Amino acid sequence: MNKVAVIMGSKSDLPVMQDAIDILKEFKIEVEVDIVSAHRTPEKLFDFSKNAHSRGINVIIAGAGGAAHLPGMVASLSPLPVIGVPVKSSNSIDGWDSILSILQMPGGVPVATVALNGAKNAGILAAQIIGVSNEEVRKTIIDYKESLKIKVIESSKNLG
Amino acid sequence: MNKVAVIMGSKSDLPVMQDAIDILKEFKIEVEVDIVSAHRTPEKLFDFSKNAHSRGINVIIAGAGGAAHLPGMVASLSPLPVIGVPVKSSNSIDGWDSILSILQMPGGVPVATVALNGAKNAGILAAQIIGVSNEEVRKTIIDYKESLKIKVIESSKNLG
Amino acid sequence: MNKVAVIMGSKSDLPVMQDAIDILKEFKIEVEVDIVSAHRTPEKLFDFSKNAHSRGINVIIAGAGGAAHLPGMVASLSPLPVIGVPVKSSNSIDGWDSILSILQMPGGVPVATVALNGAKNAGILAAQIIGVSNEEVRKTIIDYKESLKIKVIESSKNLG
Amino acid sequence: MNKVAVIMGSKSDLPVMQDAIDILKEFKIEVEVDIVSAHRTPEKLFDFSKNAHSRGINVIIAGAGGAAHLPGMVASLSPLPVIGVPVKSSNSIDGWDSILSILQMPGGVPVATVALNGAKNAGILAAQIIGVSNEEVRKTIIDYKESLKIKVIESSKNLG
Amino acid sequence: MNKVAVIMGSKSDLPVMQDAIDILKEFKIEVEVDIVSAHRTPEKLFDFSKNAHSRGINVIIAGAGGAAHLPGMVASLSPLPVIGVPVKSSNSIDGWDSILSILQMPGGVPVATVALNGAKNAGILAAQIIGVSNEEVRKTIIDYKESLKIKVIESSKNLG
Amino acid sequence: MNKVAVIMGSKSDLPVMQDAIDILKEFKIEVEVDIVSAHRTPEKLFDFSKNAHSRGINVIIAGAGGAAHLPGMVASLSPLPVIGVPVKSSNSIDGWDSILSILQMPGGVPVATVALNGAKNAGILAAQIIGVSNEEVRKTIIDYKESLKIKVIESSKNLG
Amino acid sequence: MNKVAVIMGSKSDLPVMQDAIDILKEFKIEVEVDIVSAHRTPEKLFDFSKNAHSRGINVIIAGAGGAAHLPGMVASLSPLPVIGVPVKSSNSIDGWDSILSILQMPGGVPVATVALNGAKNAGILAAQIIGVSNEEVRKTIIDYKESLKIKVIESSKNLG
Amino acid sequence: MNKVAVIMGSKSDLPVMQDAIDILKEFKIEVEVDIVSAHRTPEKLFDFSKNAHSRGINVIIAGAGGAAHLPGMVASLSPLPVIGVPVKSSNSIDGWDSILSILQMPGGVPVATVALNGAKNAGILAAQIIGVSNEEVRKTIIDYKESLKIKVIESSKNLG
Repeated sequence: MNKVAVIMGSKSDLPVMQDAIDILKEFKIEVEVDIVSAHRTPEKLFDFSKNAHSRGINVIIAGAGGAAHLPGMVASLSPLPVIGVPVKSSNSIDGWDSILSILQMPGGVPVATVALNGAKNAGILAAQIIGVSNEEVRKTIIDYKESLKIKVIESSKNLG
Repeated sequence: MNKVAVIMGSKSDLPVMQDAIDILKEFKIEVEVDIVSAHRTPEKLFDFSKNAHSRGINVIIAGAGGAAHLPGMVASLSPLPVIGVPVKSSNSIDGWDSILSILQMPGGVPVATVALNGAKNAGILAAQIIGVSNEEVRKTIIDYKESLKIKVIESSKNLG
Repeated sequence: MNKVAVIMGSKSDLPVMQDAIDILKEFKIEVEVDIVSAHRTPEKLFDFSKNAHSRGINVIIAGAGGAAHLPGMVASLSPLPVIGVPVKSSNSIDGWDSILSILQMPGGVPVATVALNGAKNAGILAAQIIGVSNEEVRKTIIDYKESLKIKVIESSKNLG
Repeated sequence: MNKVAVIMGSKSDLPVMQDAIDILKEFKIEVEVDIVSAHRTPEKLFDFSKNAHSRGINVIIAGAGGAAHLPGMVASLSPLPVIGVPVKSSNSIDGWDSILSILQMPGGVPVATVALNGAKNAGILAAQIIGVSNEEVRKTIIDYKESLKIKVIESSKNLG
Repeated sequence: MNKVAVIMGSKSDLPVMQDAIDILKEFKIEVEVDIVSAHRTPEKLFDFSKNAHSRGINVIIAGAGGAAHLPGMVASLSPLPVIGVPVKSSNSIDGWDSILSILQMPGGVPVATVALNGAKNAGILAAQIIGVSNEEVRKTIIDYKESLKIKVIESSKNLG
Repeated sequence: MNKVAVIMGSKSDLPVMQDAIDILKEFKIEVEVDIVSAHRTPEKLFDFSKNAHSRGINVIIAGAGGAAHLPGMVASLSPLPVIGVPVKSSNSIDGWDSILSILQMPGGVPVATVALNGAKNAGILAAQIIGVSNEEVRKTIIDYKESLKIKVIESSKNLG
Repeated sequence: MNKVAVIMGSKSDLPVMQDAIDILKEFKIEVEVDIVSAHRTPEKLFDFSKNAHSRGINVIIAGAGGAAHLPGMVASLSPLPVIGVPVKSSNSIDGWDSILSILQMPGGVPVATVALNGAKNAGILAAQIIGVSNEEVRKTIIDYKESLKIKVIESSKNLG
Repeated sequence: MNKVAVIMGSKSDLPVMQDAIDILKEFKIEVEVDIVSAHRTPEKLFDFSKNAHSRGINVIIAGAGGAAHLPGMVASLSPLPVIGVPVKSSNSIDGWDSILSILQMPGGVPVATVALNGAKNAGILAAQIIGVSNEEVRKTIIDYKESLKIKVIESSKNLG
């Protein structure tokens, strides 16, 4: 059974991060959701990150805004692939701080960064990662991409 | 057998992208290297991207600079996880163009973006993705992280 | 008969791109409109771009937002002049990602980039390009520029 | 006979702008080169821009750096398509000033902007514009694109 | 009699530029207001700029947004001090384009740039320039600065 | 007799600020040079600024880098026109800090900002300000602008 | 008895700066509030800064927007630690000007800068500084951090 | 006895951070130096941060580059005032990533941020913090500021 953890620095990030949860559920992948703040609950961050892989989690999606240290700190503590979602929170400078503090990790500790507020893509990427060894999930991805194509083609029919 | 493809938009990106190749080899993961230009060899881009997963490739690492369309176009055509490396090439504006044109993908088509010139981290991330279903590779990652720790601790001994 | 294709990555770009359609119609130039997504309909992108010039199209105007690969990919596949319109879409970081991923094309594959949301100017530029060999269209451009002048002079009369 | 004017704000821009001249000559298109400074020779700017189309010029390529007003002012005075090349001159802030003061033209007065220091692409774009009505030049463009492809494929052979 | 010209690229800039007009009137300095578009009325720009000093104007305040060429072009044509007001117009990218295309003038052709939308300061600066040789205007400036001080001190009385 | 004060925050700014001194001397305008640091010699800043106009100085040119408070603080204390030169000093972030902390003055306290490292233009602007009431200096400016024109035209002769 | 001064450049900064006042009161630390404008009340700035430490103030918190010179000028005149709060005021360019003109102080004159609009953190930092020598205040800080943790953990209970 | 800890994410940050060590020694304040990497030695980060105040350390100075999480994570774990030094390391984008990921901390967890590479100011700020309760150190600061003044005044003597 595959499982993805979706964590975020603050409950106020949930409206953005919900997109990741929704697409993973649509893809029939089990999701675990939690609030883990690098700056306010550092011990929980440690416990969560150190043990996630032993608890059967395959991929961690971590969203945060401003000086967003959560994804990078999880990546420092876990051997799992960590996907970072820069959130354009109210305390962010147009999202630049969120993006740069997630993306610009030093050599040795990668975070797979997606677009600003790109939680949906984080969910799809997690599914693609699971699909590397799970044929059924890969097929779901292939079908999903096909559905995107059809929607665009449909939308172009109404142009006149 | 696991296999990662490392492609880049121009041979001039090779000095940066070599870091991905090196770390993957160090991790005993098979690597395939190629030059695929989104703008100059679009047909090759199509062929490569459409068929990579059928040829047994697990993860694609794509590096490019300036208006860097290679990672995103590969991601549009392949169901595999695609890792994008923004390259600070000579025609780039301090790397901002490379970063933004790789990172800011629309909903539905994620690219797992790493830091500017962060090819080493792209290689580690590819290994982490393989490690989701390959215990041996995950153990390699855990050992690698341990080795980073030891190096930092060693370096702090000589401070005085 | 001259003809301009106006394409865009998503139907949500239409309110911006309509300005190009409107000014071209005002200039009595035939317009073809379509949705072509680089990331969701890559095969359609190929077909469209490879064949546009054979179908009698003179100039292609392509609008897209975020990691905007559409104009550049069309330019890679077509010998026609391609005009790129960076769209400040909802998933764009103040438009910087749209601008840089359209403007910063590598040597060999130009995109004629206009201002952020500058679809009207894309239409005028397409007309100027057609005007290089079409005296009537050039005269239309000259008249149009004259009308701009008159409007400004009129507006300055009401200042008091 | 087709003819392109390549002008620039200062002779110090010539090393960058030479790429436009070279590729146009390679494409067998006649080139006229001049220094026209919007700020130091405004009368020459007026004369040049007002008369270029009557003198048989088809396309104007204008390069400038810093607060780069030359391309926009030429575009305000001439009905011809004007291609602007932002030059990263010594007085420029990493090129941002050059790019923004060329790209962000108001509605009614387009400048076809290419990448920072992208004079080569300006030359290719001028040829594409001429190719709209000149089959021979279009064929040259198609051959040129083919040659780019071959070079990339050659370069990928030596990878090992 | 001293006189300041306040010009702007579009009537839509008037709400911003009105601050310059108001403060100059408050300072009893004669003001002339006009719309002069660098890109749509280049001939008017030439006439205005070439003759302003002969018509008894002492200082020119020019406001414009986006690729804002008006202040720089006036400065290229007039020996008068030119004050540039970057306007955050609807077609501007957060004002950066307006600022950089006014501020970054090449050696030989200065524009005295004030803050984004800083038309009030442009008016005060014009008065300070006139005050260099006009004792009465300088005294007005000194009184004005004193009034600013008093207002701040008054505002701090109501704090607690 | 007209007199301009050229001050700077640190002696390390002198190589940049020398351009202002040189052009003013070329224009036969008396120059006074001093180091006045807003942050290290605040009392000197106060004395200098409060008394400059009484000592017969007409215009103050102030150059500084990084968090450049000198021009704004002088402007807060003196009724004279103050020209600010943003210096790209070693402690500056590509000059953005210098520019923004000089340019973005609040309503009531203008600083006439010139381009990054644009000390030469600061000198010319000071001369233009003096020229408002000094016919001889204005004539010098007119001649200077003429000489710029001639140099550009000369430079265009050697193009081939 | 410990005391912190909270000053700001304009009364319009009070809604932002109130967060500093509130948290300090919550921590039972005495607060003094005043409006001190670097540009409009420079004499008050001098008096305040020169005497604050003699009046028993321990830490100064200074908030300002745009070309924000207040924190740096206070730091130049006082031996006390100065905390700067960049305010995203209406005349600020997305806060970048406020941040850079507070943060980028030259060697010798530090300002302890907090996040954009981060007045609450300025208050906490002032308390931490007092806590260096005041055990009771340090204990308050430790309790406060514990309360943050509890709130996050509570918030994660309601997730589903 | 007062004591300051100077830590950094990598030994390669030492040339920058040495300025903090040097000025603190000049001020006769005891310094402890260590390498603590948030991403490579997270356990050491925890131990160091949790215990620093019990070991008699008064202030922590933490320097890091790129996605610089060290200062913020220390601040999350320690009740001491934490001073962050953004380092323009080789993997940094002109320092913007370092600055934003240190400065933009969420409410509740301040980091006292100084200028890019501003380690000297970090040392002075630490001394000012100690000076709040240590008259001798405050006197050292007052003398130091006086010495800065004298150096500037000396430097201005050699100007002409």
